[in-house]
Amino acid sequence: MTREELFENIKRKKSFLCVGLDTDIEKIPEFLFDSDEDAMFAFNKAIIDATADLCVAYKPNLAFYESVGIDGWAVLDRTVEYIKEKHPDIFIIADAKRGDIGNTSKMYAKTFFGNMDFDTVTVAPYMGEDSVKPFLDYEGKWVTLLALTSNKGAFDFQFIEDSKDGKKLFEKVLETSKQWGGTPDNMMYVVGATKAEMLSEIRAIIPDNFLLVPGVGAQGGSLEEVCKYGMNKQCGLLVNSSRGIIYADDTENFANAAREAAKSLQEQMEQHLKNAGII
Amino acid sequence: MTREELFENIKRKKSFLCVGLDTDIEKIPEFLFDSDEDAMFAFNKAIIDATADLCVAYKPNLAFYESVGIDGWAVLDRTVEYIKEKHPDIFIIADAKRGDIGNTSKMYAKTFFGNMDFDTVTVAPYMGEDSVKPFLDYEGKWVTLLALTSNKGAFDFQFIEDSKDGKKLFEKVLETSKQWGGTPDNMMYVVGATKAEMLSEIRAIIPDNFLLVPGVGAQGGSLEEVCKYGMNKQCGLLVNSSRGIIYADDTENFANAAREAAKSLQEQMEQHLKNAGII
Repeated sequence: MTREELFENIKRKKSFLCVGLDTDIEKIPEFLFDSDEDAMFAFNKAIIDATADLCVAYKPNLAFYESVGIDGWAVLDRTVEYIKEKHPDIFIIADAKRGDIGNTSKMYAKTFFGNMDFDTVTVAPYMGEDSVKPFLDYEGKWVTLLALTSNKGAFDFQFIEDSKDGKKLFEKVLETSKQWGGTPDNMMYVVGATKAEMLSEIRAIIPDNFLLVPGVGAQGGSLEEVCKYGMNKQCGLLVNSSRGIIYADDTENFANAAREAAKSLQEQMEQHLKNAGII
Repeated sequence: MTREELFENIKRKKSFLCVGLDTDIEKIPEFLFDSDEDAMFAFNKAIIDATADLCVAYKPNLAFYESVGIDGWAVLDRTVEYIKEKHPDIFIIADAKRGDIGNTSKMYAKTFFGNMDFDTVTVAPYMGEDSVKPFLDYEGKWVTLLALTSNKGAFDFQFIEDSKDGKKLFEKVLETSKQWGGTPDNMMYVVGATKAEMLSEIRAIIPDNFLLVPGVGAQGGSLEEVCKYGMNKQCGLLVNSSRGIIYADDTENFANAAREAAKSLQEQMEQHLKNAGII
């Protein structure tokens, strides 16, 4: 999917919501296990059917699928296929936090872009250029590079200031990744909503790139602050909510409750898009 | 496996070799596809049977298994089971470079330690404490944290010096991880053989921890330099070779050739252990 197509979807749907499919086999409603269908897939399918008109992206979190082994990978595979078939306008993010030496990252890129039809994969920057570039070799696919994450541990290393130029590690990641062929058309960055006050600074370095913003909801980030400091002319934001949507209810009503939670966020987003004159 | 047990295995086998199972479905000998057995598993089994007495660890590289989807995960599963059953004295490393916010890292830990019986998993430090600690919650299991990697991209960020204390990012990783409960009994570090000259400095910070050292062989690192600067009283090294061993030959003789390549490294290691007075 191109940047222009993503922006068109945002305007048409009046939403920049990404729904995180952190599908935990221990948290999904029990009645799903009574059916013949795989319970995790049935859960994803119901969430997708209930929210697809309200969001522009889904983000399966790989850990939750891997943790149930082979069956989990089968669910992941089917989920991506289901979204691509039923909702081809939706951007799909493999939240996998991969990154390894060149010949290994090439295999990860093949996994997510060659075998499965994800639009992007989250990549950790610690190992530098050759760990990231293989993901850029796929035309029409994106890298989503970790810059400033939403968790407490972000303060351990991401704010270290380089003695040479006073720049923080996450700023170095933003700047350096541009030299690897990362452009607003093939690279997004993870910036946590819990650090929204840093967004102005970040926008000064990467004015045009899309940002994947986790941390609104369960982690305490504010949508208003994210929009205030992070929105650009093309919106430039994909704001993720996982637990707040998919576990809004644990009864047979879970999909309706997920829709309500997604709808509430979409309506707030619509207002922010209007305030910014984007729609 | 405890540190003492690992050290005993090193002395008994006169080896600190780790064989990297970077099993590439496009590189394994063609004749393996003629049998009823899964070719990747047949390859791993033959390599393991040919090298188990010469090494103390195996390191499956997850990317290579994931890149063939569900079948690859099944091979990974069976490979770990096979090693644990036939060679219970071997330390098994999931080279997965994982790391995410706490509740997600917890799921990754469950994958590798709860469901599969790996002894350790490689973890990227970028996201800090809460991304690493869940892996330490498993008694008898280890974290193998990326510190100074063997690739060219290591120079992008790992050598950035903190303006506060002049310490490099990889040194901060070593020091900070000690505050997370990382000890020589539950935490190892990845230090690339291609940066062997940094090992003295690294040993000053973590004298007793084991180091997982990739980069000898195909990537150009020197075993002699690694031993000179990195060995401690308990050896403290697991030196990995992947391609140089498992792809030593691509005919029906591949397992013998792998054994010869492993044997050559083991003999050099034996000499280094003798020179250091460890055996």
